[in-house]
Amino acid sequence: MRGTEDVTVLRLGHRPGRDERITTHVGLTARALGADRVLLAGAAASRADTVVDITDRFGGPFAVETTEEPKRHIREFEGTVVHLTMYGEPIQDVESEIRAAHDREPLLVVVGAEKVPFEVYERADYNVGVTNQPHSEIASLAVFLDRLYEGAELGREWEDPDQVVVPMATGKKVVDPEEVEDGS
Amino acid sequence: MRGTEDVTVLRLGHRPGRDERITTHVGLTARALGADRVLLAGAAASRADTVVDITDRFGGPFAVETTEEPKRHIREFEGTVVHLTMYGEPIQDVESEIRAAHDREPLLVVVGAEKVPFEVYERADYNVGVTNQPHSEIASLAVFLDRLYEGAELGREWEDPDQVVVPMATGKKVVDPEEVEDGS
Repeated sequence: MRGTEDVTVLRLGHRPGRDERITTHVGLTARALGADRVLLAGAAASRADTVVDITDRFGGPFAVETTEEPKRHIREFEGTVVHLTMYGEPIQDVESEIRAAHDREPLLVVVGAEKVPFEVYERADYNVGVTNQPHSEIASLAVFLDRLYEGAELGREWEDPDQVVVPMATGKKVVDPEEVEDGS
Repeated sequence: MRGTEDVTVLRLGHRPGRDERITTHVGLTARALGADRVLLAGAAASRADTVVDITDRFGGPFAVETTEEPKRHIREFEGTVVHLTMYGEPIQDVESEIRAAHDREPLLVVVGAEKVPFEVYERADYNVGVTNQPHSEIASLAVFLDRLYEGAELGREWEDPDQVVVPMATGKKVVDPEEVEDGS
């Protein structure tokens, strides 16, 4: 988000035919909850178009990139590497340290599927568990980002959207952004 | 969670062949982040076994139930109904009211796929958006539960697990719970 060091979410270990929608949700969650960029590794690149399309329609900035060398990217990343894993340290124990690191330098948040290479555990500055229970990398990413930004991501404004949802107690309202600017 | 009114997560609108893994993640996220029960509507029932299996291995209590009449269940629910939707009111504006409601009575959290019938919007006491951006019902559920319980779910203890993950800065450690009790 603007005013903070960059946060990149790296999607690792996508299995074609199984993880299509999961990887899409990872990308859209990264965008909606304040990350600056999603980096889709290997076969996950197939989901780039969907995330780009949502960014075109609902606004940015949000970058969608792909890589064939995710391990090199992690190894050489200049900043703090966080790996979300059910085997890691409890988020509530390390989140303030990670926030302090993010005040100083960019963050790479690695979100894997089932088998993550051991070198990722070793390179990560923090292996972080959102609980030590098996659940969902999407859920872990969401809780991680909400805690990293301490809720500030929920009030983020978007540039150049084609459509804007107007929050309502009941019903659906989607408008052209120029209507919103007019207050009509 | 123990000591609070029941929270049930209702998974609505599962599309066979598309939503298998998404529905599984909804169920596992509900369990891991403190809900008491997941109710799988219609075709979502196909995912019950996976969630039951995780509960058997990693502990409970957590109930997995199915229904062919989700709309009736919502209509007749005795408690507060929350529907998570990108069209709803910002979570940060309504979460304290919902916490107060949950102090008094059970909560039903409805998590839909793409098309949710309008009567759900009308019956819901709260239509809640975790941002008004399109992303993931799993991410919305995760942020909602973490805010509902104000993080208390992260310290939840589990009954009768066959295996327990021991948090580690680097690596994976899974033990028999009796070892944990022995402190070895």
